[in-house]
Amino acid sequence: MTFTVQIKVMPLKELLDPQGKAVMGGLQNLGLTNVEDVRIGKNITLQVNADSAEKAKQIAEDASKKLLSNPVMEYFEVSVN
Amino acid sequence: MTFTVQIKVMPLKELLDPQGKAVMGGLQNLGLTNVEDVRIGKNITLQVNADSAEKAKQIAEDASKKLLSNPVMEYFEVSVN
Repeated sequence: MTFTVQIKVMPLKELLDPQGKAVMGGLQNLGLTNVEDVRIGKNITLQVNADSAEKAKQIAEDASKKLLSNPVMEYFEVSVN
Repeated sequence: MTFTVQIKVMPLKELLDPQGKAVMGGLQNLGLTNVEDVRIGKNITLQVNADSAEKAKQIAEDASKKLLSNPVMEYFEVSVN
């Protein structure tokens, strides 16, 4: 069975996010002054062939650790739909 | 009140996603052969100061249309936590 797994990879809360800061500047210039903070990360959608949602989640976590995220700068969250 | 709004910006389903294809190749090389497809987009977290969740969502949608997504190549989904 094929499961759709969403992986969210975001910069660690303790770190500055220069890309987010730049986007916030852009939003302020467009007049969207209600936006107080912006953080930008990746969203990765995997189609995983596995016996169960549990297994699919394990595979996605494995992929996140091995390739998709850099633990020095990022954290990830996995969810199976 | 400050609301946390998540914006997911993904490449349109009709389009190739070369970054996703490259990552899928990497996962296969690592032995994660159960992964059948990979698509990569952005995840943007906004802190929005607004009177209601409804208003915060509207501001985030406005920001997505004006700056955060390119409608020729991407679609976006907004959710308020």
